[in-house]
Amino acid sequence: MTHAKSRALSLAEIAAHLGGELVGDPDVRISGIASLERAGPADISFLSKGKYRSQLGGTRASAVILHRSERDATALPRIVCDDPYAYFARLSMLMYPPSEVVPGVHPSAVIGPGAQLSMSAAIGPGCHVGAGARIGERVALGSGCVVGEGASIGDDSRLHPCVVVYHGCAIGRRAVIQAGAVVGSDGFGIAMHEERWIRIAQVGRVLVGDDVEIGAGTTVDRGTLEDTVIEDGVKLDNQIQIGHNVRVGAHTAMAGCVGVAGSAKIGRYCTVGGGAIILGHLEIADHVHISAGTLISKSIREPGTYTGVFPFQRNRDWGRSAALLRNIETLEARLRQLEEKISGSKRED
Amino acid sequence: MTHAKSRALSLAEIAAHLGGELVGDPDVRISGIASLERAGPADISFLSKGKYRSQLGGTRASAVILHRSERDATALPRIVCDDPYAYFARLSMLMYPPSEVVPGVHPSAVIGPGAQLSMSAAIGPGCHVGAGARIGERVALGSGCVVGEGASIGDDSRLHPCVVVYHGCAIGRRAVIQAGAVVGSDGFGIAMHEERWIRIAQVGRVLVGDDVEIGAGTTVDRGTLEDTVIEDGVKLDNQIQIGHNVRVGAHTAMAGCVGVAGSAKIGRYCTVGGGAIILGHLEIADHVHISAGTLISKSIREPGTYTGVFPFQRNRDWGRSAALLRNIETLEARLRQLEEKISGSKRED
Amino acid sequence: MTHAKSRALSLAEIAAHLGGELVGDPDVRISGIASLERAGPADISFLSKGKYRSQLGGTRASAVILHRSERDATALPRIVCDDPYAYFARLSMLMYPPSEVVPGVHPSAVIGPGAQLSMSAAIGPGCHVGAGARIGERVALGSGCVVGEGASIGDDSRLHPCVVVYHGCAIGRRAVIQAGAVVGSDGFGIAMHEERWIRIAQVGRVLVGDDVEIGAGTTVDRGTLEDTVIEDGVKLDNQIQIGHNVRVGAHTAMAGCVGVAGSAKIGRYCTVGGGAIILGHLEIADHVHISAGTLISKSIREPGTYTGVFPFQRNRDWGRSAALLRNIETLEARLRQLEEKISGSKRED
Repeated sequence: MTHAKSRALSLAEIAAHLGGELVGDPDVRISGIASLERAGPADISFLSKGKYRSQLGGTRASAVILHRSERDATALPRIVCDDPYAYFARLSMLMYPPSEVVPGVHPSAVIGPGAQLSMSAAIGPGCHVGAGARIGERVALGSGCVVGEGASIGDDSRLHPCVVVYHGCAIGRRAVIQAGAVVGSDGFGIAMHEERWIRIAQVGRVLVGDDVEIGAGTTVDRGTLEDTVIEDGVKLDNQIQIGHNVRVGAHTAMAGCVGVAGSAKIGRYCTVGGGAIILGHLEIADHVHISAGTLISKSIREPGTYTGVFPFQRNRDWGRSAALLRNIETLEARLRQLEEKISGSKRED
Repeated sequence: MTHAKSRALSLAEIAAHLGGELVGDPDVRISGIASLERAGPADISFLSKGKYRSQLGGTRASAVILHRSERDATALPRIVCDDPYAYFARLSMLMYPPSEVVPGVHPSAVIGPGAQLSMSAAIGPGCHVGAGARIGERVALGSGCVVGEGASIGDDSRLHPCVVVYHGCAIGRRAVIQAGAVVGSDGFGIAMHEERWIRIAQVGRVLVGDDVEIGAGTTVDRGTLEDTVIEDGVKLDNQIQIGHNVRVGAHTAMAGCVGVAGSAKIGRYCTVGGGAIILGHLEIADHVHISAGTLISKSIREPGTYTGVFPFQRNRDWGRSAALLRNIETLEARLRQLEEKISGSKRED
Repeated sequence: MTHAKSRALSLAEIAAHLGGELVGDPDVRISGIASLERAGPADISFLSKGKYRSQLGGTRASAVILHRSERDATALPRIVCDDPYAYFARLSMLMYPPSEVVPGVHPSAVIGPGAQLSMSAAIGPGCHVGAGARIGERVALGSGCVVGEGASIGDDSRLHPCVVVYHGCAIGRRAVIQAGAVVGSDGFGIAMHEERWIRIAQVGRVLVGDDVEIGAGTTVDRGTLEDTVIEDGVKLDNQIQIGHNVRVGAHTAMAGCVGVAGSAKIGRYCTVGGGAIILGHLEIADHVHISAGTLISKSIREPGTYTGVFPFQRNRDWGRSAALLRNIETLEARLRQLEEKISGSKRED
């Protein structure tokens, strides 16, 4: 999202917009946000984790955002609140608001028959909006976007350049989709017949709820017979692959390079770490957290954090660990033999 | 692939096209396909796996496709066959045939000198077909596709929007390539010289056989001196990376997010699960099946299924398992010590 | 990169350009490069690894490049040098030089107000160069590239089709960026507030040094408040994801499908194998080599090679290994019990 230049605000104005307790001079003017270490005069900074507290003393920031419990940790002008990180996030959007959408259809864009474009939408150079597609209010399509026949883009959504939304798919309101993302590609449905793979028609759609973000290069396949569904508030980072018929529950967030195989059903408020793989036809409960690099091979019914990663070591050490692991059956057999020798009888499992 | 609206067929017509034994009223008209659970009147459903048999009783489908052994498991009109899943696949393509290719070159497309476009091809808005490229009969290029100089696209192939085929590469007949796929990018060939990486010219091509599918965001690098080869009938899901000089054998299928490093030779009729990594300069025999998330670090000479995945656990349990694994050498040493104590002599390996 | 047809050179000309000791007829003319096995007359080949030495006797190449220690291993005309592989790399670029950049702006390209295009640049069909962007000398933009507002592309850089460089980002000189790559997409910055994810403005840039290569489908996110930095000489293969605020040190090379999470700082002269994942907010020293498929979960302070991969096995064997690994705590407990029995007292750790 292109952001306008930051706007200068007084601490009083900030607190008026976002709440929190203002301690110190309310007229201090803030024109940027920076980390404690990098902040200069006219910047505001924030302390969200204890490990950065030592930087508080040396910061050159004009003001800081602190947790209630750190209220007196500095003499600088400050805003005290319950969640400094969330406060910082909200402040970032207040100070660097998204740039205005300038309505209009670039003359190089191609608009199909029967497409409905709202007057407030901005259609960039080289876009192609297919027949019967619907582009909502204040939507911005970056250069080279393709919206297929009968697809729809909800109000206030922004597509960066070169996004492809296939025919019939529906994107909700306030979506942000980064460059090169693809929504609605054919699912990977094949069946072997007489020693040849044959294709299974993929006639479902992708339905994307409101307030969804989709990262650069992320791909979401359309459903086979039913629809692939991305519920409200889902946040997908870059280069994620979502297979056909998947459902991603509301407010679930996935980091980059995650793969979700076909027909998996993922709950609400889950998080999935980078590079994790979720196999198909399984269910993940709400509030499940999957660690980066973990392969999920069966359903998870209970909330909690789940991990499966080979710990990294120096290559030589890893080589020995891996060799023993490959022969862990032998290790177990040796142990069992000893047990039998000592107890004088066979162990029963 | 855009599919036309489904067409209604009688069971008799279906059986006439696709075979199988028709049991029950041949005049039942079918206008859609759905799962047993979701089917409504006028839908046909199918039972491909035993685990869904319980849904057979409650289905509202008008007809079902069953395995020979389940012939009498329902009183509904039915088609009995050897492989209900493959039958469903073939029926899906019969009922939802790909939409017609409407010949023509969009006025915004750019066609280089000497390019040969068949009269029956459809070239979408904003496409660029390079000098001397060849576009076969009934080929459809979606919006914004780029076909490089001297490249060729075989008859009846369909490229979805924003596909890039580099110069000199050749795609066979009946290919389906999803949005954002790239064929023929430079391989990752570098050599260190005087503390700088220098580039190795990548002057081979990519040769893609007939009936190949390439998923959204998948990338296939051109060869260094020779060619990268994707043989007939290969099916590649989304976001797969195929390195330079790789050969993928006929009718091999790979799920999403697989990476194949340079110069690997993969056999025929293999399957590779999602997120697997195959290292370079190795060979995989025919009929090898690699599980999702597995890293293949050496050649596989025997058919079979191969796996290497750390089983996921609750995070706390994983932490303990991982710590013991990291110290598995110590575990083995302790075991060896015990063995020596008990036998009174040193163990010899 | 499109390469011109190879040019024929005599061995004497080659040695004059690239050095090395020429042994045998200096007038032998070379018109191609090929492996020992595939070379024909008029080709030059090279022997970089001992394991191919057996092919030296049977090669039909007209000349070979050899290591000093192999000087007399053949009677063929030859060039003897310290590093045959690097010599081959340099020769490949000499014999197959990149095609000339033909200056000009395609009439279908859209150039924003205030954009500075050097007269020697080539802007392909359907490109969009945003307002105030700067395109350097001899830059080539392939079809459909998008260069955002105020972004800059350094001299002699080549962007293949459909590359997107977001607003404000800066690419150095001599970059090669493959099709579909994205530089400057918004970082994945979100914070939970009242049970909703809120977005953190991503107002940093991506700064890319000189001599950097970026592979097809690779994505590099812009920084949150500061910049994401890719230093000089970095080589990124296809489908790599670089998160916001990451710094990749000079001359580091990463193979395909690597993911680097936000704020990781990676040293100089590192290599990262395919599919590896590097978690966020950690530091990797210079000269660290990370094996393919390895997840790096904490900082690495010492140079060396690091690995963490579950060794693959036949599926059945893996199943047993994985089950024992999942229960490795039980294994350890059994061992401890035996130790206690034998020593007659509790082991202390």
